[in-house]
Amino acid sequence: MDTWLLSRMQELKDLQGLIGLATWDQETYLPAKAGPARAHQLSTLQGIHHERLVDPRLGDALARAATEAGLSDDERAMVTVLQREREREVRVPAALVRALAEAQSHGLHAWREARKERRFARFQPALQRLLELRREQADAYGHDGERYDGLLEGYEPGMRVSRLTPVLTTLREQLIPMVGKLTGAKRQVPALFDGRRYDKDAQWRFTLRLLGDLGFDLEAGRQDLSIHPFTGGTHALDVRLTTHVDESNPLSAIFSTIHEAGHGLFEQGFSPEHYRTPLAASPSMGLHESQSRLWENLVGRGRPFWEHYFPLLRESFPDALAQVDLEAFHTVVNDVRPSLIRTESDEVTYNLHIAVRYELELLLIRDELPLEELPAAWNARMERYLGVTPPDDTQGVLQDIHWAWGELGYFPTYSLGNLYSASLYRAAGRELPDLEGQLRRGQMLPLRDWLRERIHRQGFRLPAEERVREVTGQGLTDADFLGYLRAKYGALYGISL
Amino acid sequence: MDTWLLSRMQELKDLQGLIGLATWDQETYLPAKAGPARAHQLSTLQGIHHERLVDPRLGDALARAATEAGLSDDERAMVTVLQREREREVRVPAALVRALAEAQSHGLHAWREARKERRFARFQPALQRLLELRREQADAYGHDGERYDGLLEGYEPGMRVSRLTPVLTTLREQLIPMVGKLTGAKRQVPALFDGRRYDKDAQWRFTLRLLGDLGFDLEAGRQDLSIHPFTGGTHALDVRLTTHVDESNPLSAIFSTIHEAGHGLFEQGFSPEHYRTPLAASPSMGLHESQSRLWENLVGRGRPFWEHYFPLLRESFPDALAQVDLEAFHTVVNDVRPSLIRTESDEVTYNLHIAVRYELELLLIRDELPLEELPAAWNARMERYLGVTPPDDTQGVLQDIHWAWGELGYFPTYSLGNLYSASLYRAAGRELPDLEGQLRRGQMLPLRDWLRERIHRQGFRLPAEERVREVTGQGLTDADFLGYLRAKYGALYGISL
Repeated sequence: MDTWLLSRMQELKDLQGLIGLATWDQETYLPAKAGPARAHQLSTLQGIHHERLVDPRLGDALARAATEAGLSDDERAMVTVLQREREREVRVPAALVRALAEAQSHGLHAWREARKERRFARFQPALQRLLELRREQADAYGHDGERYDGLLEGYEPGMRVSRLTPVLTTLREQLIPMVGKLTGAKRQVPALFDGRRYDKDAQWRFTLRLLGDLGFDLEAGRQDLSIHPFTGGTHALDVRLTTHVDESNPLSAIFSTIHEAGHGLFEQGFSPEHYRTPLAASPSMGLHESQSRLWENLVGRGRPFWEHYFPLLRESFPDALAQVDLEAFHTVVNDVRPSLIRTESDEVTYNLHIAVRYELELLLIRDELPLEELPAAWNARMERYLGVTPPDDTQGVLQDIHWAWGELGYFPTYSLGNLYSASLYRAAGRELPDLEGQLRRGQMLPLRDWLRERIHRQGFRLPAEERVREVTGQGLTDADFLGYLRAKYGALYGISL
Repeated sequence: MDTWLLSRMQELKDLQGLIGLATWDQETYLPAKAGPARAHQLSTLQGIHHERLVDPRLGDALARAATEAGLSDDERAMVTVLQREREREVRVPAALVRALAEAQSHGLHAWREARKERRFARFQPALQRLLELRREQADAYGHDGERYDGLLEGYEPGMRVSRLTPVLTTLREQLIPMVGKLTGAKRQVPALFDGRRYDKDAQWRFTLRLLGDLGFDLEAGRQDLSIHPFTGGTHALDVRLTTHVDESNPLSAIFSTIHEAGHGLFEQGFSPEHYRTPLAASPSMGLHESQSRLWENLVGRGRPFWEHYFPLLRESFPDALAQVDLEAFHTVVNDVRPSLIRTESDEVTYNLHIAVRYELELLLIRDELPLEELPAAWNARMERYLGVTPPDDTQGVLQDIHWAWGELGYFPTYSLGNLYSASLYRAAGRELPDLEGQLRRGQMLPLRDWLRERIHRQGFRLPAEERVREVTGQGLTDADFLGYLRAKYGALYGISL
């Protein structure tokens, strides 16, 4: 491949890395008064990234390379990936980019105010504007009559509403009665977070130990604290996780760390040959999320995992956990309970929260739901799917930040991540016959290495679903996920699901 | 002023801020394996900054603005400052920029190897190459027959060898006998760092307290740890200091923090009207250094300062300092002693270290000293000026990193900083009649506010020496500095200097 084209690819990746650094720093170490300055710096950097990406010379070089004989498969994939990204960016007029940036900033502000006032109506005009601009953007991107597809493509390339809706609808219809049965079952859940204190330093040390055991390389990454845990960084050798330590409940830090480590292992696992090219990336948000959820739920809420770690946890918190046994603890980390807040929900009800969001944002983008009816529609679906009703908008339609800056099309990738995670874990179980035994002995590297080889090292060579099909023998399906839930919670609750 | 020109100024400043962030992060939190990735990211960012700066459209806009009627004084200064920076950058051909970057990277590597081998010869070819390129660069910048001026202009705009040499030579000739007298004087210096332990957390807390007292705004900046303390950051509201904590000697952290806080106060003190413009900058490295040295030496090694802080220090380290009194402690922080290493030297001998470097690098740039003779020339001057002889090159010519990446012309700004600091402090004393009393009571804000008004808020409005003349009534002089040393050390040592 043309050295000019390669150097442009590298430059774009460097700029993305720097955006990653400035964003990570904003959430971790940025001084309180520096917010507006950082916003300017990020906007300048994003502007330059945009300018370099839409540069016509890059378009020409990509077009030439696309027809060039003698490219390797990887080089061909680099060209395809960057060409697709570039074409999307080119299609959005500069005026719309600016208008969106303004509407996002305004949306965030209005959303924060609305949360303070506990009143959706305060946010409604800003959301209206965001919706109009996102529809315009979807049309600019292009679609086959379903605008939502134009947005979804930015998070989950290749996925379409026509394919997604049936899967998520079936999933929802299977989950509703399952949650009903689990909620109806009589089951004693011990209270472990009833005012006991879990030393913060001991929590921090425990999460670092987990990172080491998971094979997260702390010489090619780090962990810090932030209010909302996330994974960021600048390069496969500079991956930055954050966690959140709550003195009254160590599960927050533990599961945040495991979740983010799942993302982080993906990033650290990119192939060195792909560094500074478009292939050092996940092919979709859903596949990225499959890695975090696989470790957090399939591994981290599993019995084998805690057979190894519970004794160590009790050593870390000898006072708080003195009277608690593995059985009780495992019950607590697998408590299914319909609730109002998505980010605090268990792995069974989680996808019902996503269903509410996906269905509503699809209606919004299609302009089939008047915005003033959104809170009522939200509450009605929460009641229908989960049997709970938000007491106010803060615990309802205003709870997530996504819509506040116009991020519509993202939510379904969480469910895709859950579905993929179960399929991948099932495939891992077939190919690593002693997987449970390994986890029971605290040996997580065999699973990490399997994922590294099958998923991480592959980067963006194939679209997400094709990659999953390569590994599991089938594409997107809810069968593995539902099978996993039925087997696990049926046994835990002693009922048939 | 043209909004396009203003937005370009802001963009350049944002890029500088981001370079600051990536550099700060490199020295504080970057994972061990991420060095090469960060080098690429920084090089991309610097390349883009260069490209935007030399953009002919910027040149045209500046030229138009320079002749525009109706600009405010500040706008005019912005245009002048950026025009000068741009013209320097334009004059250096891209091939030379690349060759220099390569030679710098190679130079750093060779210097590190040479230090390991304790052998200048290992570094010599790399330095030879750097010298050739820097001479070429000086010619590209342009000068009136004195190449060194072309380089000096990059650190100390407006300063010339013809003006600098007489000042530094007189200074040297005054200091040599002064050091001789002080060294000859019999004076008992208590041993405080003889294996005593100074708790690291207590040191850290003490430095944070100092920062607060100095008026360094920890909501518009932060302090972290690094091996070599420095001041960086991204904006006047995001100023980042580092310090270094040595468990056996708290003076390292204390004086590092005070020194860097001096730099940091300058950065935090820029006028909000100048944010994101070329005026939010020091007019020279020497003036920047005057702020760090003023706080570190004129204030921080003074008797009034320790009358307030010594009791607090003793509270922080009750065991180590139990038997120590203010007298003894003040003697230790003002111990004059010829030594081999610049960064560890006291305020009297410090400028003799600079004299050695300045004189030698002037000869090197003029091509009047064969490189193989450099170590011997170094040692001879150390012997002549300070009476000490390096046992090997590591403690001699290889001790500083500056030449390792071709930084020639920088060293004299340290001495300029010392000279300016004494003149400014003397002026402050005239205008703040109770200055000593305030320091004795731990009140540092009146001095900070005076500096903020006279120096910090002014930013790059005037060249350094003009700014100093505005404040003190005179330009560069060694009289105030020598007067300060004579008065202080004459009294401390009980001799006439």
